[in-house]
Amino acid sequence: MREMTESNGPVGVGEGGGMPGPTNPMVTPLLTDLYQFTMAYAYWKAGKHSERAVFDLYFRRNPFGGEYTVFAGLEECIRFIANFKFGEDEISFVRQILPPSCEDGFYDYLRGVDCSDVEIYAIPEGTVVFPRVPLMRVEGPIAIVQLLETPILNLVNYASLVTTNASRHRSVAGKSKLLLEFGLRRAQGPDGGIGASKYCYMGGFDATSNVAAGKVFGIPLRGTHSHAYVSSYMSVDEILDKSLRSSDGSSTCDDFVSIVQEWLSRIQGSNSLHGAFGETNQSELAAFTSYALAFPTNFLALVDTYDVMRSGVPNFCAVALALNDLGYKAIGIRLDSGDLAYLSCESRKFFKCIEEEFGIPGFGKTNITASNNLNEETLDALNKQGHELDAFGIGTYLVTCYAQAALGCVFKLVEINNQPRIKLSEDVSKVSIPCKKRCYRLYGKEGFALLDIMTGENESPPKVGERILCRHPFNESKRAYVVPQRVDDLLKCYWPGKSGKEREELPPLKEVRTRCIKQLEQVRPDHMRRLNPTPYKVSVSMELYNFIHFLWLNEAPVGELQ
Amino acid sequence: MREMTESNGPVGVGEGGGMPGPTNPMVTPLLTDLYQFTMAYAYWKAGKHSERAVFDLYFRRNPFGGEYTVFAGLEECIRFIANFKFGEDEISFVRQILPPSCEDGFYDYLRGVDCSDVEIYAIPEGTVVFPRVPLMRVEGPIAIVQLLETPILNLVNYASLVTTNASRHRSVAGKSKLLLEFGLRRAQGPDGGIGASKYCYMGGFDATSNVAAGKVFGIPLRGTHSHAYVSSYMSVDEILDKSLRSSDGSSTCDDFVSIVQEWLSRIQGSNSLHGAFGETNQSELAAFTSYALAFPTNFLALVDTYDVMRSGVPNFCAVALALNDLGYKAIGIRLDSGDLAYLSCESRKFFKCIEEEFGIPGFGKTNITASNNLNEETLDALNKQGHELDAFGIGTYLVTCYAQAALGCVFKLVEINNQPRIKLSEDVSKVSIPCKKRCYRLYGKEGFALLDIMTGENESPPKVGERILCRHPFNESKRAYVVPQRVDDLLKCYWPGKSGKEREELPPLKEVRTRCIKQLEQVRPDHMRRLNPTPYKVSVSMELYNFIHFLWLNEAPVGELQ
Repeated sequence: MREMTESNGPVGVGEGGGMPGPTNPMVTPLLTDLYQFTMAYAYWKAGKHSERAVFDLYFRRNPFGGEYTVFAGLEECIRFIANFKFGEDEISFVRQILPPSCEDGFYDYLRGVDCSDVEIYAIPEGTVVFPRVPLMRVEGPIAIVQLLETPILNLVNYASLVTTNASRHRSVAGKSKLLLEFGLRRAQGPDGGIGASKYCYMGGFDATSNVAAGKVFGIPLRGTHSHAYVSSYMSVDEILDKSLRSSDGSSTCDDFVSIVQEWLSRIQGSNSLHGAFGETNQSELAAFTSYALAFPTNFLALVDTYDVMRSGVPNFCAVALALNDLGYKAIGIRLDSGDLAYLSCESRKFFKCIEEEFGIPGFGKTNITASNNLNEETLDALNKQGHELDAFGIGTYLVTCYAQAALGCVFKLVEINNQPRIKLSEDVSKVSIPCKKRCYRLYGKEGFALLDIMTGENESPPKVGERILCRHPFNESKRAYVVPQRVDDLLKCYWPGKSGKEREELPPLKEVRTRCIKQLEQVRPDHMRRLNPTPYKVSVSMELYNFIHFLWLNEAPVGELQ
Repeated sequence: MREMTESNGPVGVGEGGGMPGPTNPMVTPLLTDLYQFTMAYAYWKAGKHSERAVFDLYFRRNPFGGEYTVFAGLEECIRFIANFKFGEDEISFVRQILPPSCEDGFYDYLRGVDCSDVEIYAIPEGTVVFPRVPLMRVEGPIAIVQLLETPILNLVNYASLVTTNASRHRSVAGKSKLLLEFGLRRAQGPDGGIGASKYCYMGGFDATSNVAAGKVFGIPLRGTHSHAYVSSYMSVDEILDKSLRSSDGSSTCDDFVSIVQEWLSRIQGSNSLHGAFGETNQSELAAFTSYALAFPTNFLALVDTYDVMRSGVPNFCAVALALNDLGYKAIGIRLDSGDLAYLSCESRKFFKCIEEEFGIPGFGKTNITASNNLNEETLDALNKQGHELDAFGIGTYLVTCYAQAALGCVFKLVEINNQPRIKLSEDVSKVSIPCKKRCYRLYGKEGFALLDIMTGENESPPKVGERILCRHPFNESKRAYVVPQRVDDLLKCYWPGKSGKEREELPPLKEVRTRCIKQLEQVRPDHMRRLNPTPYKVSVSMELYNFIHFLWLNEAPVGELQ
């Protein structure tokens, strides 16, 4: 992409400089709040629109009662910025909605607006982040940066929230389990679904059921069949073409249904399994058999339409054993209701019995997937009960972030015309940290991150091995000396504007996912645990601390008691 | 639209028959779960793909602890259906993700698939609905209807959830208040934002801040300025062009800033307001003055950047009074933090003082808008405390449906090849009601809805004035005789397929909104109240009741105790 920049002039002058637009074509310069336009007009009218402003994007509290967040959404923001340009019909719509007294010159101005003079510094996507530290710093002409506020917040807020949610599910499920995102049907709108698939994958999920997301982002896809498929069958008589070629192609079995029925009788007659079940449901048997005929290499059956242990599992085993006769290995079962821990253990026992009784090596290890309104709590409960599940399909609670449906990222002015600005509030946690800042992550001897520190733009950076005083931004009694063993400069330049700086590459999704998984391993476990996690320290330098408090006193009105 | 149908042949044969596609272009036939494709293949492989299936879309529990839901999302579903057709690149992607053993004929089949043989019956969009009653019934070739399941659920679930949420906010706020949706920045992705704007308007909101939604759906737009606008100013010296023409165009004031400053001194010197505040913040005064110069006809100021009563409100009044001198009427203030009830009352007092002291008729009625994480609870609390607010800007909690982030609509097979199907579950609430059904709403003498009743497709409909026995579908002791004064047939034909039926029109958004508001008035208040609402009765006919229980016994496996 950098080569393209060099040969085609500055990137992002409205035509994306070769960078594709946002995934969702509805993300246009009009996807913003009306007040960004009224402010842009007021700035323009006052001749103030080109004043150079610096805004920080950050959040104030970690979601889900946790002490960490994963930053996501950056690539979509940069794609948006790169292609930011008003079309004529957009300008005429803005003209319609502003008062008729607004002057024509403003629309000429809008016509020329793009992000060529905007600079964006950001923490790399997929990084573990903490409250108050800017995830993005956006600098540029104030009218333009205001127009960007809403879409950037929109693209970052949910992305970071759902990535964090996915990472929390991964952390509870453990590294060895297969995690599948099944949320499309319950997501908050179509791209709530597509976005969820992307960011759950980023946060550590293995695959999605969402075909469109698979196509757009190259995420692995998973899925088998539903209850409706099972109940659409009445009996095996419906299966007309009963033939199945063996796995190695050497022979064809003319009546696969008979082999299945034979196996079912053998299972029913088995000593060790005897009495575990009576007659199984015939429509289910027909559905499984038919599904196996369609997907002999991918046979995974949903076993809870009628009764898991009395019908679903024996029917599955009959079909799986018939497939085995032809050289195919069934994948496994999915449980979608009931006591998942108990049913998984019972199913595992059944599979092991089959392995022993009929001498089918590996059958005991047949995959068991669970779904049905899973979330962090149910995964945790399953772990405590003990279970035999290999994979989890997670939907509603994951993609809608049911436990906390919004992340409160904000976008605050911290400097204009090189003058630092502060936003006061009676609620101290809402006071913004002024100035264009630098942000560093300091690491200790064991390789874990110790704390993040913000300094003024022109302060010299913390150095490895040198003691530095780190202060809580608002609480004067909270401070600590730190001697970092490693220092990461957190904010990288993702959109250089006219600064002449090098532009950071946007890595492909898979690399961001790998980064995210690694990042989570570098955070001290006590910050990550579900129960009473330790807050991670976010601090400011001595110099910045003093400046914040000077400015605060300067701006706050003095009360008059009467 | 019906005319178009007649002249152009059957609508919806893949090209939409003139009907536009879904609002979000990402809603394509690939926006579905992988298992819909694996099932479609398995049906096709078994020669079962054209079997006629009937699916019901319904939910099991009302959201937000309430006893009603508003159905929404229908128009988007019909637009999707009308344009349902696979493109070549979509088919080749499906080929990539299915096992290589899948036969070529399936892809030829997919190439020809459209919804010309699908029928959709639905309750009109914007109707108040209740658990278990089908919101939509989708009939058609089973493989096609399965492919539709996920996108239809996606388009209905969030739409109905957020419309319901909006209607609940309206109900707490009261009819006379202005409700503004401000959620775009916190929404779950870009069309979480656009969808929220549409459906909040449908549910009774008056306007949105989302410009894109205003353009796409014609929703009124609102918005003024942010804290950043205020803090971007340092002092009134920054205002270079200080001239303002009077409202009637008859004269031009050369130094509007001086008039503002004069008014500020007069307010500061006033007897009744004396001592209420000292020096106001000058950057705020500059920002307000500048904004008024840009929007003299639309002056609404955010007054809490520094201190509402000591700075924001006096500054606002100074600018508003200066505008008044030139014949303009300021709109009002917005409060975005602090004790909104208290601050609104104090601001109102201040405005009334100004009205009296300076003889400005109507100034006491200056509009007061509140924002800042409002939700049903805070609106309710404000009502109880007493407040002077005229308008509410509601974002995060509204659009993300924070109180309950998902509605659990499901899509269940109820009939195939004219054979009724039932989905059993150990959890009775999860047992589906089989058969192609008719659904009626019965009204009592006072015009309120009494209950909904489902009957078999061929039963004769309930008649006005005739006694009918209504039974709870699963609880045999719950039943009641009803003599309806009015009977509404709930399911209308929105997509006739090849049935030859008339197609219901899809009314414009504004009409759906009006319908929704009227509907909510026809539900008995005790079903609608926030605290301990009475459940609305959903029943089945005697005949359907008996059939459900016959089928249930038939399908359930008989236990064997040992």
